[in-house]
This record gives sequence, structure tokens and C-alpha cells, in this order.
Amino acid sequence: MEDEKAAEGRSAAAWSEDDARFMDEALTLAREAAAMGETPIGCVIVHEGQVIGRGKNQRNTRKNPLYHAEIEAINEAAGAIGDWRIEECTMYVTLEPCPMCAGAIVQARIPRVVVGAMNPKAGCAGSVMNLLDEPGFNHQCEVVTGVKADESRLILQDFFKELRAKKSVDKEG
Amino acid sequence: MEDEKAAEGRSAAAWSEDDARFMDEALTLAREAAAMGETPIGCVIVHEGQVIGRGKNQRNTRKNPLYHAEIEAINEAAGAIGDWRIEECTMYVTLEPCPMCAGAIVQARIPRVVVGAMNPKAGCAGSVMNLLDEPGFNHQCEVVTGVKADESRLILQDFFKELRAKKSVDKEG
Repeated sequence: MEDEKAAEGRSAAAWSEDDARFMDEALTLAREAAAMGETPIGCVIVHEGQVIGRGKNQRNTRKNPLYHAEIEAINEAAGAIGDWRIEECTMYVTLEPCPMCAGAIVQARIPRVVVGAMNPKAGCAGSVMNLLDEPGFNHQCEVVTGVKADESRLILQDFFKELRAKKSVDKEG
Repeated sequence: MEDEKAAEGRSAAAWSEDDARFMDEALTLAREAAAMGETPIGCVIVHEGQVIGRGKNQRNTRKNPLYHAEIEAINEAAGAIGDWRIEECTMYVTLEPCPMCAGAIVQARIPRVVVGAMNPKAGCAGSVMNLLDEPGFNHQCEVVTGVKADESRLILQDFFKELRAKKSVDKEG
């Protein structure tokens, strides 16, 4: 674990064994998304040591732009908490949130977000911008990045590699 | 109409009679939200001259941070279109979108957004920032502001005035 943390580099000091364990649950959901043919991204929301919200990307299956992993997890967690404020929770997500999901995290007042891989093209927890720590909004989150980042990234890379191979076979066939 | 446009000042040239008519439909939904005790914000999404998505803010009633007017309208419009891309549509919303809703508009690839009142505290179509025209993302929208802005703002002001009056009576009583 210490070696893994050191290898990740970023924010290594700020995450615990529990964080790694909950990110593993998010990675399981990412694999479920891949099995459905969806870009593999998974998310869990944890309150007092219990997972109260789970989500996996299902944008194509549901034919709906709202079905990102984080949105599904927030929807479930709000039901569990019984309020629009999902406070005293930590969100674990395998890929850096997009603007919609980062905005939803701010709306839900989630205080802590743990991120796996970064998303240089659309990520809003530090890559394109950081909506999770924007002084102009009425809520800012603690953001921890780089937790199981290699594993989170590999799942995505493998998914797209298989997709390209399949497309190539389809083209030849 | 011309006087009203001139009075609004902003983006006056870019909106039509149709835009004003569809904003009226969004304002009707905002009034429905107020009648439920919700902050009055309404939204419609229009495709080929037809309203295919409607939403009103219901965050407190639903006890869910996702129930903003725009999210409900996008959800309904995606169902009508049968795709996560809600292209060739215009969204009409009575209050400038928050980061979550602006991000959802980008995710849904909505090409044109017509806004009533601005929201200096949290608006992401030009106030705090402009997520709808961010070169770093893979989609940018045409944004028209100031359509029925006075009416959109007055509904909100009246709602909060009544709320304060009610609280004051409750305190005295």
C-alpha cells in the first residue's frame, strides 16, 4: 500500500486503507458498466462507514445524458439520507467528475470527494478547471486524487482497446 | 415587445417572439413550483417548435439535489428524443443555470439556451463563470440572456418576500 501510494504521487498522504477499500467498490461498479458495453466509470457514496449510494455509467443503455455514475449514486444517497443535502459523506469515483457531476456534488454539499484517474479532457476537479473548490460557489469540497488511479485508468484503457479491436474486426468481417 | 427588448438591454437582438412565448411556458412552470413552496424556477426544452421537456424546481419536495427544473426537463427530453444527445433543441429557463445544470446542458449537447433572470451568486452562464461557452469542453452553446428577465426575477422576489413575511408571522405567533 505504501509503495502504491508513493507511486501515485498525488495527494498520497491524504488517503487511508478505508479509502482504498471503497474505491475498490467503485471499481467493481466500473467493471459492471464495462460488461454492459458502457465506458467503465463507477461511484459509491459512503456515510458513517456504510455505502448509501452506488452508481455506474449507463449513458448509452439508458439513452440519457444524466446517467453518469455520480448522478445515480447521488440520487440513491439522497433517498437514503432523506434530504437534498448529502452531508457528512465521502464520494469515491473512478474518474474525475465532468462539469455536470462536479456541479451536482456542489449542489448536494458533499464535503469530501476521492478520485481515481484524472480526466484531462473534461475533468472538473482540477484538470480543465476545479468546480469542487471554486470560491465563487457556496460550497467547496476536500478533493483527494490519485487513489487507485492506475487501476481506474487501466479499466478505461482496456475497454477502449477492446472497442477498437471489435470495430476493426467488424470492418474486416 | 420592442420596448421590452430595449429595456432588457442584453442580447436583445438575438431573441424572437417564439422565444418569448416559450419563456412564458417556463414561467408557468416556475409559478407551479412556487405554489408547491419551491423556489420558482421553470424550464422547457423545444424541438422543432414543440415542447418535448418540462421541468420545475422540486428540490425540497423531492428531498433530492438533482430535482432542478433543467434536470427534469433534460430527463423528459432525452426520453422523447430517445438519445443522450438532445441536439437541435433550445432550452428556456427562467433563472441562469447553476454549475450542475450548466454541466448537464453541455453533456446533453443542447446547442442553444435562452435565460430569463441572471443569478449573480451561482449562475454558470456568465455570472460566476460561463460553463456553456467554455473552450476547454467539447461542446459550447449559444446563450441568449435577458428574455423576460424582469418577470423571471419578480416571481423569485415575490416568493422570497412572502416567505420572509410568513416566517415573521410564525415568529410573532
